[in-house]
Amino acid sequence: MNLVYTGKTKNVYDMGDGNYLLEFKDDVTGENGVFDPGANTVGLSIEGMGKICVRLTDFFFSKIAAEGIPTHFVSADVDKAEMVVKPAELFGKGLEVICRIKAVGSFFRRYGDYCEEGQDLDYFVEVTLKDNDREDPPISKDALDTLGILTADEYEQLKDLTKRITKIVEAELKKKGMDLYDIKLEFGRVNGKVTLVDEISGGNMRVYKDGEYIEPLKLPGLLFD
Amino acid sequence: MNLVYTGKTKNVYDMGDGNYLLEFKDDVTGENGVFDPGANTVGLSIEGMGKICVRLTDFFFSKIAAEGIPTHFVSADVDKAEMVVKPAELFGKGLEVICRIKAVGSFFRRYGDYCEEGQDLDYFVEVTLKDNDREDPPISKDALDTLGILTADEYEQLKDLTKRITKIVEAELKKKGMDLYDIKLEFGRVNGKVTLVDEISGGNMRVYKDGEYIEPLKLPGLLFD
Repeated sequence: MNLVYTGKTKNVYDMGDGNYLLEFKDDVTGENGVFDPGANTVGLSIEGMGKICVRLTDFFFSKIAAEGIPTHFVSADVDKAEMVVKPAELFGKGLEVICRIKAVGSFFRRYGDYCEEGQDLDYFVEVTLKDNDREDPPISKDALDTLGILTADEYEQLKDLTKRITKIVEAELKKKGMDLYDIKLEFGRVNGKVTLVDEISGGNMRVYKDGEYIEPLKLPGLLFD
Repeated sequence: MNLVYTGKTKNVYDMGDGNYLLEFKDDVTGENGVFDPGANTVGLSIEGMGKICVRLTDFFFSKIAAEGIPTHFVSADVDKAEMVVKPAELFGKGLEVICRIKAVGSFFRRYGDYCEEGQDLDYFVEVTLKDNDREDPPISKDALDTLGILTADEYEQLKDLTKRITKIVEAELKKKGMDLYDIKLEFGRVNGKVTLVDEISGGNMRVYKDGEYIEPLKLPGLLFD
């Protein structure tokens, strides 16, 4: 197996059989030791975090696949903190797709003149470029199309899938009394089709219970027990 | 007449007869003495700039109105650097609508990973909020709709008018051998209709001739002589 990519929270290996192995690290994004799913740097390392991420991704991707939504998931080995996935073509150099149920984080920082912090949003979808040097700039449907990153038709598919996936994750959390505020997803093309890729774990979302923020590490305890 | 607003480049008076008087100053936006149409501060003051702005706005607004596009323009007095306009309701606290023919300025700064500086764009339209404290953040059609600033239908009207206006301004400049790279417009509601407001002068656009940037002050000389 060849290591083909080293990311902030995982390593990617080419398995030689057409699939890729994702090896999850114990690192999470944030700044100065504080977790922030929108951050571009590793903020802290938490023992066992890799396994937790694989367990949560396995759980959520199964629910999402059961609804007929295409994902890159093939199999998972929680004890090894590893996941096998199908190869996917990125949109450009990678996009992040955010779905917002509450106005918090960068949405509130940008548009705070027009909303209250924590106000309800109707599964609002926005896209940012993965570009650390330019601080992950937001990008519109028209700009994605103009720059050849995503066609207008693919954008509509991506937006529709994002809302459906967010509602599935929200419903699972709700069963345990938790509220999803926002979630960050990644998509790619698998056999030419817009497909959910990467992971879905605590580092991808802001979850609250009774108005209190739930740390990513505490999510499995509340979700599975 | 009551002074109702003091802006970076103009003062606004209520005329008491239902219309407003815009008094143009000699100040232009920029930083450290360098003109920048996208800047939020007054960068320099140029004697006669107010009159130039009224003369150019009068010229372009006439061409635009002749094409059946609604504007807030009533009359202009170039020697006094004054313009009379109809009252317009802002979208939210004000938007800037940018149309780009070449990839320069903030577009290139944001999306430079996906384009060459100066590359052709097909009358690409984007909107930013006028919000100095938040550095005029870009905002999508969906976000404008979600935040109640502009309906999806109004957005499409605004986008269509912006492209038409840009092509009119581009054609006038082209007659004198000049190239329009981008332009910044403002719109409001006049009698409930999406209407071009504010001004169109050198400070609103980037103009080049034979690949050389044309200073706003030099624009009338090249356009009218």
